[in-house]
This record gives sequence, structure tokens and C-alpha cells, in this order.
Amino acid sequence: MKFMNKDFLLMSKTGRSLFHKAASKQPVFDYHCHLGPQEIADNKRFADLTEMWLAGDHYKWRAMRANGVSEQLITGNGDPYDKFLAWADTIPRTLGNPLYHWTHLELQRYFDIYDPLSSKNAASVWKQANDKLQNDDTLSVHGIFKKFNVYAVGTTDDPIDDLRWHEKISAEKKTATKVLPSFRPDRALNIDKPDFAEYIAKIGTAANKNITKLDDLLGALKDRVAFFDKHGCRAADHDLEFLPFEAAVDGSTGGLWDKEAGEIFEKVLAGGNPSKRETECFKTYILCYLSGEYCNLGWAMQLHIAALRAVNTAKLRQLGPNTGYDVIHDNVIAAKLALLLNTMEERGKLPKTILYSLNPADYYPMATIMGSFQSEDIPGKMQLGSAWWFLDNRDGMEQQMRILANEGLLSRF
Amino acid sequence: MKFMNKDFLLMSKTGRSLFHKAASKQPVFDYHCHLGPQEIADNKRFADLTEMWLAGDHYKWRAMRANGVSEQLITGNGDPYDKFLAWADTIPRTLGNPLYHWTHLELQRYFDIYDPLSSKNAASVWKQANDKLQNDDTLSVHGIFKKFNVYAVGTTDDPIDDLRWHEKISAEKKTATKVLPSFRPDRALNIDKPDFAEYIAKIGTAANKNITKLDDLLGALKDRVAFFDKHGCRAADHDLEFLPFEAAVDGSTGGLWDKEAGEIFEKVLAGGNPSKRETECFKTYILCYLSGEYCNLGWAMQLHIAALRAVNTAKLRQLGPNTGYDVIHDNVIAAKLALLLNTMEERGKLPKTILYSLNPADYYPMATIMGSFQSEDIPGKMQLGSAWWFLDNRDGMEQQMRILANEGLLSRF
Amino acid sequence: MKFMNKDFLLMSKTGRSLFHKAASKQPVFDYHCHLGPQEIADNKRFADLTEMWLAGDHYKWRAMRANGVSEQLITGNGDPYDKFLAWADTIPRTLGNPLYHWTHLELQRYFDIYDPLSSKNAASVWKQANDKLQNDDTLSVHGIFKKFNVYAVGTTDDPIDDLRWHEKISAEKKTATKVLPSFRPDRALNIDKPDFAEYIAKIGTAANKNITKLDDLLGALKDRVAFFDKHGCRAADHDLEFLPFEAAVDGSTGGLWDKEAGEIFEKVLAGGNPSKRETECFKTYILCYLSGEYCNLGWAMQLHIAALRAVNTAKLRQLGPNTGYDVIHDNVIAAKLALLLNTMEERGKLPKTILYSLNPADYYPMATIMGSFQSEDIPGKMQLGSAWWFLDNRDGMEQQMRILANEGLLSRF
Repeated sequence: MKFMNKDFLLMSKTGRSLFHKAASKQPVFDYHCHLGPQEIADNKRFADLTEMWLAGDHYKWRAMRANGVSEQLITGNGDPYDKFLAWADTIPRTLGNPLYHWTHLELQRYFDIYDPLSSKNAASVWKQANDKLQNDDTLSVHGIFKKFNVYAVGTTDDPIDDLRWHEKISAEKKTATKVLPSFRPDRALNIDKPDFAEYIAKIGTAANKNITKLDDLLGALKDRVAFFDKHGCRAADHDLEFLPFEAAVDGSTGGLWDKEAGEIFEKVLAGGNPSKRETECFKTYILCYLSGEYCNLGWAMQLHIAALRAVNTAKLRQLGPNTGYDVIHDNVIAAKLALLLNTMEERGKLPKTILYSLNPADYYPMATIMGSFQSEDIPGKMQLGSAWWFLDNRDGMEQQMRILANEGLLSRF
Repeated sequence: MKFMNKDFLLMSKTGRSLFHKAASKQPVFDYHCHLGPQEIADNKRFADLTEMWLAGDHYKWRAMRANGVSEQLITGNGDPYDKFLAWADTIPRTLGNPLYHWTHLELQRYFDIYDPLSSKNAASVWKQANDKLQNDDTLSVHGIFKKFNVYAVGTTDDPIDDLRWHEKISAEKKTATKVLPSFRPDRALNIDKPDFAEYIAKIGTAANKNITKLDDLLGALKDRVAFFDKHGCRAADHDLEFLPFEAAVDGSTGGLWDKEAGEIFEKVLAGGNPSKRETECFKTYILCYLSGEYCNLGWAMQLHIAALRAVNTAKLRQLGPNTGYDVIHDNVIAAKLALLLNTMEERGKLPKTILYSLNPADYYPMATIMGSFQSEDIPGKMQLGSAWWFLDNRDGMEQQMRILANEGLLSRF
Repeated sequence: MKFMNKDFLLMSKTGRSLFHKAASKQPVFDYHCHLGPQEIADNKRFADLTEMWLAGDHYKWRAMRANGVSEQLITGNGDPYDKFLAWADTIPRTLGNPLYHWTHLELQRYFDIYDPLSSKNAASVWKQANDKLQNDDTLSVHGIFKKFNVYAVGTTDDPIDDLRWHEKISAEKKTATKVLPSFRPDRALNIDKPDFAEYIAKIGTAANKNITKLDDLLGALKDRVAFFDKHGCRAADHDLEFLPFEAAVDGSTGGLWDKEAGEIFEKVLAGGNPSKRETECFKTYILCYLSGEYCNLGWAMQLHIAALRAVNTAKLRQLGPNTGYDVIHDNVIAAKLALLLNTMEERGKLPKTILYSLNPADYYPMATIMGSFQSEDIPGKMQLGSAWWFLDNRDGMEQQMRILANEGLLSRF
């Protein structure tokens, strides 16, 4: 059997038939990705394999670091070919890691290169692939969209973003693929971060509002949600290192809660430091407010749980965030997740929801909790998200699907 | 191969031989079920498939809700056939869920119906099955007991129950199956619940005692244990959302502990609210007291851990408890479980014990903890319970058996 | 196929080829074992199978206890043959447990006995094996080392040990196998244990220092590390029931931390009891100090996490520690593990590190955390340790390797 041929991973006749006759003909709707809208608007072509593969992929960076590659050849100012060579030298060592399969699927499906990459054939792969990147129109961003039948992609955008590139893409109609923004307001919730007040001022500017009270913030967020909705946004996305839930001090989620959240907000805008309880109370409050807006507009709410960020502070100083130093967290989530969803439901404002966790131990609690908030209005309203990030491999995907099948309806996934 | 034929799941020759020659001939001893003793005494016949399948099965309710079925057709006042049709429409969507297999095993083994159920054949299945329910004596409760060689069933009963139906069944001798009560005193431990004092009064009535002090409660519980024992009870059952362990404030489990538990009890009977520590202290104390009674009578103690109950409060108000809104919890359990069992052992009062958890992450700690309290008096005295509820499927059962085999003796299970 | 023949577990042609042509010819380097250095120096021969198998193996003891065997025949003063018979009677019941395979591999590979052991053939196995133990030179300690091509073993030693047996082995050159000490300073960290002050005095004696201040302790530890290094030690080993991390009260890991750690140390030497925070602060401090010494000498640091010790206090009183009453813990570890490694890294003193946990739920966080501290100086500097103790079976090993492959480089393992 040819190395990773068209029946790769399709070990049974049923599997091959399902994939080739049905699944492979479906369009791609990637509702959560990190493509840059400007690169799409510009119909970018990558200069070479290094720019395409290594300029931003922290999965590959981590593998190279584990292989002892110098940081200069990873995120540093090394020569592009030297960087590629370092990757070509690493790839045979990634056997068993999804990077091995991704890399070779990309070489096969995009570049018609079928030899397993290693330092031995690196020079010829580099030449062959870069030629194609420069000369083959199917390898521009729009070309890739077309070749792989991409119906739509959802980018990830900050509420303060002016969405100019989304507007341009949509106005110019150069690609048939829909490019939709996603609303990711993490920084508006992170009241415990040093740049919170600064960020709140930026939302004020974006929404053309002076924000001094909690109501001002809620109004500005509502405006930005409406603005995103006008640009085709259908989903919000929240990154939750821990699952927050705190009601008011007396346990209520009504007027007293409004009052406390307001006091916490003003205290921090005035330079104060929130306690852990106050941080959690404020985050819960804003999440519950936003869930109402999502609900009103029929958006889906994605909760991404259990990523512990930037654990290596030397590298954070040197390289900044999102450079391959985030890890799988192991906090308990069940009780607070149940309370959070229940509070939204009690307020009549639980939107369509997709729950993801970076820790597969959370799948069982999540699958059963989300199953307790299904609705007769929409089949499959609550979803267990597909295996994400560190779990985006065969083991993780099988685990997510088996647990969902056992505890809910895989057929509604 | 016929759809789910007699060799269903028996993929090897050894498996088929073991099942057909040995396992299938064994009688059923279901020591933990939720059959209603009155229905057994009355030798109930179900009016139709809807009453049999959908009147009380929250597994099916959850699947229907995930499929967007209206609550009226689940627990509401919908027409029985419409409810059945909603289930028939849901069942093809449960592929991968144990409900799919349970439903079809029941259709095959009880009704000789071998076509996969769907909305297409729902009308004929409804007619065929209901005719059989009305006319076939093997489908009364006693008929089912006989057909499936049920040696004994353990019902689940509150200490205040007068066990009149158990008495009737036993006196009338209409079925050869033993119907034994199980002692489930959760409400006597739940000092943090609003109806605690009210419930204590009911135990007092059942035991013909006026309960004002802790000693009164212990005496009443002892009486009820003896009463259950006289009616054939061989097992107690505890539902523990979290694993409680708190000794006295000074750490002791002796006289000072008695005193503190007594003070907590009287405070709550007088209308006070127990703190979290007091709740846990009281629960630990009663568990340790009851374990002594179980031990004296040779009962087995079942601990069911990690079910978080009724997380959807709107549905709790509307439908009450146990209606499909309980979920898998993720509290840590190891340290307190070890302390609880150790305290019982130190007092010389650790009964035969079966540990269940709803979270498979607990299997490893549980298997090794229970393995540290085995005894030369009884091989396999401590047991890791079989996969329970949300885990009662092929994946869960395999996981439980593999972990037990790796950490203990599967052969003593 | 013969019972557990030479292709046992090698289910594919590739597997058989890899094992027989490559793996089986590699020498054994067991860098973490619990062999006694005196037994090695004495080139001990075991008197009989009972001494070899049952005198110290708490794995077997646990299985026998689960089988209801009397403690007299486990750790008690029972007759050696009766003990062996109790084990022979237990072994058929361990089917599915690695003990079953270990026992039969040992009978086959050391004794040429191929019949599955049971009470039926116990007498002949006993005779045959004991004859061989007495008369076959390949069954002395040095003989076993030679027969199985053991390049080196790492024993487990307390810092106060004078390493006299290691010196003797090395001086006498009677075995080609290197016998290297490992530095296991748990008792120097366990400030919350009652014998802490007494132990500190012993380190003082070993290092020929009077220890009254923290600096004295650090100096003594540094001396002992150097002494172990001179005797060939290449690795330290820490047993951490919970993952400690506490900086100074103000959050710093600098001068204030030194001061606080010193105050805690002096308080406890003077008879005071450390709080939980103080215990954790002191442990973190010493770990970070020692990591610097390991780093300077190029040692590997092994962290063994999540063993909860001696949960059965009656047995602890009767039999002492390490007698089969330790269990798998379930504490969260991610945040503190990340902080601990990060603090070492910030101080420029993160050594080569191997992380083990007794709870497989920790594998995912551990694999991603250690992957965030790799270094261009050494490929695979940070390692996810192999499946350990209760996980040292096929399921545990497969899980460890799959997770490592998915999250890092199995090829650098």
C-alpha cells in the first residue's frame, strides 16, 4: 500500500465508502480558525514552505524544541532554508504525532509530493514546493479555498476590530468562500489582567462611547455584537483558563449581582485590584450578559476551557504570547459549568452552545452537563466540541466521538 | 450476519463459548435496581410500549431532548402513541449509544421483533408489541422474572418505608424470584437539605421514637436497619455527591467527635444552618455509625459517588428530581475516601464494600484504595463496582474491567 | 501457539522483527530500581522462590490480600513453602493482571519452567526452581546481571547513606554491571513529618556539619550531592504526594523567599509545627535549591507524583511503610507543576527532568507542561516518565506512549 495513500486511516470497506462517496464531497465549513483576514483579502501567496509552515505554527515549534533545535531556527532570524532544513530533520522524529500526518498530507494534497520528508530530500522538496507556491494559482489563498471546496471560514476577532478586511473581502467578491468574523471578547472579561482599563478604553473608542460605569460597558459590548452581526458573525468564542461562576455575595443572580459587578468594575477602572472572587463574579456577570445578546441574535457561543497560558515566563518575555508555551490545565469544572449554564437558562438566555476542553478528563462531565440543557426548539442545541488543539489527533477525536455517542447523540453532532 | 443476532458483541470463538455455555445459563441476581415493589407485588402488566419504555426511563428522555423532541411527548401529557412515535423517530439517531442496543435487544428478546425500529415500522411494532404485552404471560413482571431466570432483585428503599409490598410478595409466594429491600438512608445524612428536620421526624415515627438527640437518631437508624434485615435486606446504598470526611475539630474520631456531631445535629433540628465542615462532619459520623451496623449484620455497603444532581433548576421545578438532569461530577475523592474507609477499619467496622463512581477518572484511585482494605476473612471483600449509569456501556464496562484487572483481581469480581 | 512463547505480545511481523532483531539485543540500563546494594555486593543467592518472590514484593502481597490469604502467609512468619503455596493458589486468579505475566516470564526466562503455575504443580515448581537457585550460577545476582546483559542499575539511596556497598562493589569489580546510587532526599523536604528534626541531625552527621540555620542545611545537602556524584550518581529522585509550589508571601522567589524559608526551618527545628503553606513553601524552596545542584552536575531530576502513602493505619502500625498500602492520588497538579519548573528555569537551574505520575489523568497536563521547557542544549531534555508502578502494565504503557507521541516526540523518549 502506498505511503499514506487516498485510503489513509480508512481501514474498513464501510469507512472507505463513507469517506469517498459522502464525506469527501462535502464542502468545508471551518467555523473556528485563526486565518488572518488581511491575508485572505490580499489573496496572499506564501514565499516558501518556511513562511507557510513555520512562520506561525506553534505545534511545529514545540516539536522542534523537543528535538533540541535552536530557537534561532524556530522563531528567530535564521535563514528560511535553514529553518526548513531543521523542520525536515525533525519530521522523521515526529512519528506517532499528528504533525507527521499533517505535513505529509499537505505535501501530497497541495504539492503532489509523495516522498516522506527528511533532511535527505529536503533540498528537492524545497525547490519543488516553492516553485509551485510561486507559479500554481491553486496555491494562493483563494486558490486553496476553491480547490478544497471551502464554503466558509470563521476568523477569530477582537470586539475592537473594525473588520475592514472582512468588508473588503465581501465587497470585492474575489473568492466564493464566505469569510465571517467571530466575536472573541476575552479581554473585556479579564478584569484581573494589568491592561484591562486600557482595553476598556479601546472598546469605548470602537463603540464611540465613554465607558465609566458597567452599563456603559454593557452598551458598548452590545453595539460591538450588533456590528459583528451586521458583518455576518454567527458565533462568539470565549477562552476560559478556569470555569468562572460566582453570583452575588447573597447567592442571587439578580439586582444585587448587577450592583456588585458594577462596584467591582469601577474599583478596577479606578486602579484597584480585584480579588479572586471579584474576578470570577465579574467574568460570570459579563458572560451571562453576552450570552443574552448571542441568544437574541441566534449566535452560537463557544466556550474553550482548560488552556493554561504562557507557563514559561522567560519565553513570554522573549517571544510574546501564543508561541507554544500553553498547556493542558486540570481544574475541576463540573459544578461551576453546570451553574453557569443554569444561570443563563434561568434568565431565558442560553444560546446555542459548543463546549470544548483541552483536557479529555472534562469530556464526561461536559457531555452530561450540556445534555441537561438541550431544548425542544433546536435539535442538538448544546454540543460537545470536537477534539481541540492538543487533542486534535486520532486518539483525541475517537475519545470525543465515543463519549459523545455514549452520553448523547453523535448523529446530531 | 443477522442484525444483532445471538452472537452480538461476541467477536471471538472463546467469547461465544464462554457466553453460550456458561454465562447465559447463570441466574440473574440484580442486587441494585429501581423496580417498584408494588408493581412486583401486583404482577403488573404494562399497558403498552410507552408505559414500559418511556414512563420512567430518563436515559431515553435525555436522548429525546437532545433530538429536539417536545417535552410534552417525553414527560408531558402527550398521547401514548405519539410518544412512542417520537421515540421511534429518535432511535435511529442513537447509533453508538447503548440505548440503541438496549432497545433492540428488548424488541428481540421480549417481543421477537427483529426489524430495527424507526418511524417507518413504528405502527406495526406498536401493535405487535402491545398485543404481546396484553396476551403473553411471559410479559407480566413475574413472567419476565421466570423467563430470564431471575434469582433475586434488590429494590431501593428509604429507611422510613414499611416494606409492606416486600412482605406481600414474600407472603404470597407468587414468584420464585426473591425480592429484597436495600437500605438507602441518604436523607438521614443530608443535614444540609431544607427538609432534613421533617425527615428526621418521619424516621422517628417509623421507629416509634421521639428524636431530639443524636443518640435518638442512632437508635432509630439501628432499629430500621434491623427491620430491613428481618425483611431480607443484605445491602445498604449511599449516594454521595462529594466524598465526605471530617473528623472532630481536633482530628479525633472518638469522644469529641460524638460530642460535635451531636451539637451539629441539635443545632440543625433547632433551625440552624450547618456550615460546610459541619455538614461533612455529620455525614462522616453517620456513615461510620451505619457502617458498624452493616458490619454487624454482614451487609454489603455500596457507595455511589460523583453524581451531581438536578443541575437544571427550571426543569427541577417543572418535573421534579430524577428526571434526566443529573450529571457526572469531577471532585477529587482519593484522600477523603481513604480516610473514610480507614476510619471504619480503625473502629473494626468496615463492612463488605462496593465502590462506584460516575466519573471513570475515579476508577484508578478507587481501585487502589479499596485494594488497601482487603481482608483475610473474605476474599474480594472490597469491590470496584461495575460501570454505572452514564458509564453502563461497552466503553465504560471495558474500562472498569481492565482497571480492576490491572490493579486487583478481576476473578474475584 | 505455546503459552506466552518468545513472541508473547508481539502480534505483528514488524513487532517481532523490531523486538528480536533490535530491542532484545540492547543492554538493560535500569536507572530507577529498588535493588539492595548490599545484596549486590554479597552476590546474593535467594534461598528459595519465597525469598525471591514474596519477601519484599508488595505487588504480590496486594494480590494475595485481595484473594483473602492470611497475612501470616504474606508478610508473617508462615512456613516458606506454605507462603509459596498461597501464591501458587493466587496466581491463576490474577489473569488480566501484570503479575500473571511477570510470574510466568520469570519462570520461563530464569528457570525454564513453562507450565502455568497453580497449586497443582506448586510442589514440583518449588523443587525445580529452588534446585536451580542453589546450583545454577546464572541465578546469583551477578549471574542474573550477566545473563540479561545489564549495563547499569540505579539504586535508591538516602543522602545520609555512606554508600559503603557501592564502594565495595566498585572496588571489587566482581560484576561488569555498574551499580550507581540515586539521590533521594525526601526526608530533607518533609518538614511536616514528626521525625524531621531528628533526620536533619543525621544529615548534619553525614556531612560533618552542625545544622541550625537553613544555610547549614543547604551546605550539607550540597556536600551530600557532591559525595553521591563522586560515587557515580547521575540522578536524583523525589516522591511528591502533592505538587508543592509556594513562593514568598509577596509572591517573589528571591531574597524574601530565602528569609521566609529560613524562618520556617528554624521554627520547626525549635519544635514548632509548620502550616500547610509553610510546608509547601519550604518544600518548593529546597526543591529549587537542589535543582540548581543537579543542574550544575548534569544530573537528571526525577519527580514521582501522586502516590498517597500508607492509607491503612492499622497495617502501618503492624507492618510499617511500603508494605502494599499506598494508592493513586487525584490532586490537581498542572498550575503548580508549571510554576515549579518555571521558577527553576527563571533561576537558570532547570536540570534534565523526568516526570512520572501514578495517576494517568496527569499525563496530558504533564506532557504539555514538560514540552514547554525543552531546550536547544539537549534534545529531549524534559521527559514524560514511563508508566510507573500501578500503571506498569500494557494499558498504562500504551497510554503513556500514545500521549507522549501525540504531544511530544516519542522518538526522543
